Amino acid sequence: MKRISARKVIYSFSRKHKPVEHVTTKEKVLLETEDAFGGQVKDENMSIEQLDWTKVNGATGPVFVDEAKPGDTLVVAIEEIRIPDKGVIAVIPNQGALRNKSFSAVVKIIPLHEGQVHFEREIKVKANPMIGTIGVAPLVGEIPTGSLGRHGGNMDVKEVTSRTKLYLPVFVEGALFAAGDLHAVQADGEVCVSAVEVPGEIILSFDIIKGKSVSWPILETQNSYAILACGDSLDEASALAVDAAVEAFMREYNWSFEKAYMFSSLVVDLKVNQVVDPKKGIRANIPKSLMSLESLCHGNS
Amino acid sequence: MKRISARKVIYSFSRKHKPVEHVTTKEKVLLETEDAFGGQVKDENMSIEQLDWTKVNGATGPVFVDEAKPGDTLVVAIEEIRIPDKGVIAVIPNQGALRNKSFSAVVKIIPLHEGQVHFEREIKVKANPMIGTIGVAPLVGEIPTGSLGRHGGNMDVKEVTSRTKLYLPVFVEGALFAAGDLHAVQADGEVCVSAVEVPGEIILSFDIIKGKSVSWPILETQNSYAILACGDSLDEASALAVDAAVEAFMREYNWSFEKAYMFSSLVVDLKVNQVVDPKKGIRANIPKSLMSLESLCHGNS
Repeated sequence: MKRISARKVIYSFSRKHKPVEHVTTKEKVLLETEDAFGGQVKDENMSIEQLDWTKVNGATGPVFVDEAKPGDTLVVAIEEIRIPDKGVIAVIPNQGALRNKSFSAVVKIIPLHEGQVHFEREIKVKANPMIGTIGVAPLVGEIPTGSLGRHGGNMDVKEVTSRTKLYLPVFVEGALFAAGDLHAVQADGEVCVSAVEVPGEIILSFDIIKGKSVSWPILETQNSYAILACGDSLDEASALAVDAAVEAFMREYNWSFEKAYMFSSLVVDLKVNQVVDPKKGIRANIPKSLMSLESLCHGNS
Repeated sequence: MKRISARKVIYSFSRKHKPVEHVTTKEKVLLETEDAFGGQVKDENMSIEQLDWTKVNGATGPVFVDEAKPGDTLVVAIEEIRIPDKGVIAVIPNQGALRNKSFSAVVKIIPLHEGQVHFEREIKVKANPMIGTIGVAPLVGEIPTGSLGRHGGNMDVKEVTSRTKLYLPVFVEGALFAAGDLHAVQADGEVCVSAVEVPGEIILSFDIIKGKSVSWPILETQNSYAILACGDSLDEASALAVDAAVEAFMREYNWSFEKAYMFSSLVVDLKVNQVVDPKKGIRANIPKSLMSLESLCHGNS
């Protein structure tokens, strides 16, 4: 199994980054990852003002996936996420859902023990290790790893966990995949701008669907497909997610727009990812019993 | 058990409406309700243009709850929701999450059978009968039953089902409670602007928490409390929901704002109600294991 060091870190998704490793669809890969603060927060006396902001939100990679070509879909099977026994969370003035309020910068070290996040001595929450940032290089330009888009990125979807699959559009040769920003636990919204930020290891493998593309990243969990859309507001992100879901139902059942729109009102749950990054994320959740992968991952338009 | 006819219908929440019934906290009440179209859609040939729009989104009531005074909290225990064996759904041009697209008005009659909604012959969805509109009179003015606010209203929360409790602020003597707009099934978002609209019967009972108030309607389900906020955009609604959740955690654990804000990022799930009404609804979902009713329903501010 190839192991990629957390020192191989990028701060943007871009074709300009030279691959740090080449992998095939026949092998597993282990990515070591930094935490979202780049490991800079060592204790609770750390002041947020001391942070080197050029070293946050890193993603390990990029990985060149052999045979991935523009117009294909990259399938990322997340097999395991390993995290250590402590993490860190921070509130940062002018950040988060309540950024308009006046409050202080605070850093808190959070111990983990036996699958529980110990926020306070008596207040525990079940850990749910997840990947905050995961994506590929866009066709042109450079997208900071702290943002999100059709290429993936900092989507902060709490369901991106082990035993799920993510389908990403391939824009450049080899896809140039990278991931990082693990969270030991995060609720839908990530409302204060951070979660329990942890370094760790991700074990994954790749597959490629040749010549078919997804309009947004698609997450496959045990019972659902989720279309991971984003926009400048939650309202815009919702409309984009619904649009993609309705189009998928039109393909799935050969329905009119009107019938697919109706049905979406009954079975497509709009869910919030995070509300705190430059782009807001909404996912459209569709039961797998009602939708096939083929209708989500279709011919190139 | 007192039975209130669906002919006792209001189209706004307001203190101006004379109560149609007086009830105590010791009795059950049955509300008959019209569907959201006021029963006007009889078959699929019905044209939306023929609808009398002054007769849609009605709510049955208002009910005067004895001893409910301004500053109290009205507790509504929803015991049973009975629906018939067919409903209706419509797409309406210029409505819904995709209102900017060009499409036709379509009405579809949806049969129900053995707890399943039969969208098409082979395409069934499990029914989940829920109340779309439920609320009390505001302090001043008149709020259309098709809108929502701190008084409740057309919140379209799919978890407002039987065996849940809703906590509503009381603004006027007797609360002047009303409910209607039952849905046989609706997904989070209600993206096309309607769901499977059904008439029906709601059996409920009331209780009163004296001298304590909720800042937003609170829904209690088996494992969660949800703060039902709304705003002019999903983004605004999210911030209001988070604000209320953070304040509740500050009360619950006697925490600083910063600590409550952090913790909310780990355990408060922001969920979408509907994205299609004049006000957008977001609910902040909090596990009951981490929050008491007392911190949500507190002294009047």
